[in-house]
Amino acid sequence: MRIGFGIDFHQLVPGRDFWLGGVHIPYHKGALGHSDADVLLHAICDALLGAACLGDIGLHFPDTSAEYKNIDSKILLQKCVSLIAEKGYKIINIDSSICLEAPKIKPYVKQMQQVIASACNIMEEDVSVKATTTEKMGFVGREEGLVAYATVLIHKPTKLVM
Amino acid sequence: MRIGFGIDFHQLVPGRDFWLGGVHIPYHKGALGHSDADVLLHAICDALLGAACLGDIGLHFPDTSAEYKNIDSKILLQKCVSLIAEKGYKIINIDSSICLEAPKIKPYVKQMQQVIASACNIMEEDVSVKATTTEKMGFVGREEGLVAYATVLIHKPTKLVM
Amino acid sequence: MRIGFGIDFHQLVPGRDFWLGGVHIPYHKGALGHSDADVLLHAICDALLGAACLGDIGLHFPDTSAEYKNIDSKILLQKCVSLIAEKGYKIINIDSSICLEAPKIKPYVKQMQQVIASACNIMEEDVSVKATTTEKMGFVGREEGLVAYATVLIHKPTKLVM
Ligand SMILES: [Zn+2]
Ligand SMILES: [Zn+2]
Ligand SMILES: [Zn+2]
Repeated sequence: MRIGFGIDFHQLVPGRDFWLGGVHIPYHKGALGHSDADVLLHAICDALLGAACLGDIGLHFPDTSAEYKNIDSKILLQKCVSLIAEKGYKIINIDSSICLEAPKIKPYVKQMQQVIASACNIMEEDVSVKATTTEKMGFVGREEGLVAYATVLIHKPTKLVM
Repeated sequence: MRIGFGIDFHQLVPGRDFWLGGVHIPYHKGALGHSDADVLLHAICDALLGAACLGDIGLHFPDTSAEYKNIDSKILLQKCVSLIAEKGYKIINIDSSICLEAPKIKPYVKQMQQVIASACNIMEEDVSVKATTTEKMGFVGREEGLVAYATVLIHKPTKLVM
Repeated sequence: MRIGFGIDFHQLVPGRDFWLGGVHIPYHKGALGHSDADVLLHAICDALLGAACLGDIGLHFPDTSAEYKNIDSKILLQKCVSLIAEKGYKIINIDSSICLEAPKIKPYVKQMQQVIASACNIMEEDVSVKATTTEKMGFVGREEGLVAYATVLIHKPTKLVM
């Protein structure tokens, strides 16, 4: 069994689609980035890679690569799941927290959990997405951007030899 | 076995009692919030709920509810422990970090650990509370507020059938 | 098995050597602190101490002690590993994230992982170091300082009695 931790940051700016947890959220701003800038999926990618000691998201999907321009981060997440599976690891559970001031994302949390579970080939009850504001403090509180944290537990299933 | 992660933020303002880790700390400021604004207990609540995939503290104890106005967060923590117990989970250990510039909380850490262990029905040696400043940087460094992080490991004890 | 979490902050200022993950990084600024101010090693120390419920880095290595003035944080890390070993714990794996805007640390990550694994008496494949910017936001984004996060999993190996 191994632990992984991921953190990701993106600015929130007008004129971008807002993708979060693999879900499109109607809002007058969206996260800025080379890919679709899905801060939650990126944090989960990093947690998975970290748990398996496979580097980080910047190593696997460089933001200088045309291949990843505006890419759907669900594809990146699926690639990370494949990378850890190649080393024999399965996900036990994922817990995550999004820090943002607005908009309210509660209506989308259930769908995010479904999308993430599906991309990771795990059950919905093994994916948790939580959210909090930063009580108006800092760059999140000023609505300049958002942060996501993810922790994961992975393991190599014991091979039973009969 | 499952992992959980929680993070919470509160402003520090004059004219409020300062509750941290279930302990009252004499200080000229206190954390602002709907409940007693105990940032550490809230982070632990969120970590427990996240580990068991039970939503977050905002879902269970909405800050728009009169029921939770000025509530002692130890009661919220006990409710979270009950919620995960109903799903068959027990806490293995809790580790937490408080980021604040002032006051020094070292004299209260032992008592916080006792209070949290008691609210969670676990042993004191299974609760860790740590603290750090942010070296004068950011909103914590400017003493505008404080942040707490908590990680937990929970498990479903194997039922031995004889 | 037990979980631990650590976080550490340091200012980046001119005229200091820049130590990160036990590696000296050529840069016109370095982290400010009483010791060598290695933010990553400090976060790992705190995660190990927290997992074993042994207090925090400020308790064991007070920044008011002449003994720790400019000390190599690898020595602090080795002491933390000894402290948890005395309680019977071994490290399963360490995952960590460094948040800093500049310089690029990718060329040093492999060496950091080697240095940390060596200080902890574990294999390189059990230490993960990741890095991210904060997308120009906050004190990290303004290059005033840096933050490191570490999570660890430790366990007490079962003693087989024959
Ligand atoms: Zn990202
Ligand atoms: Zn709170
Ligand atoms: Zn430090």
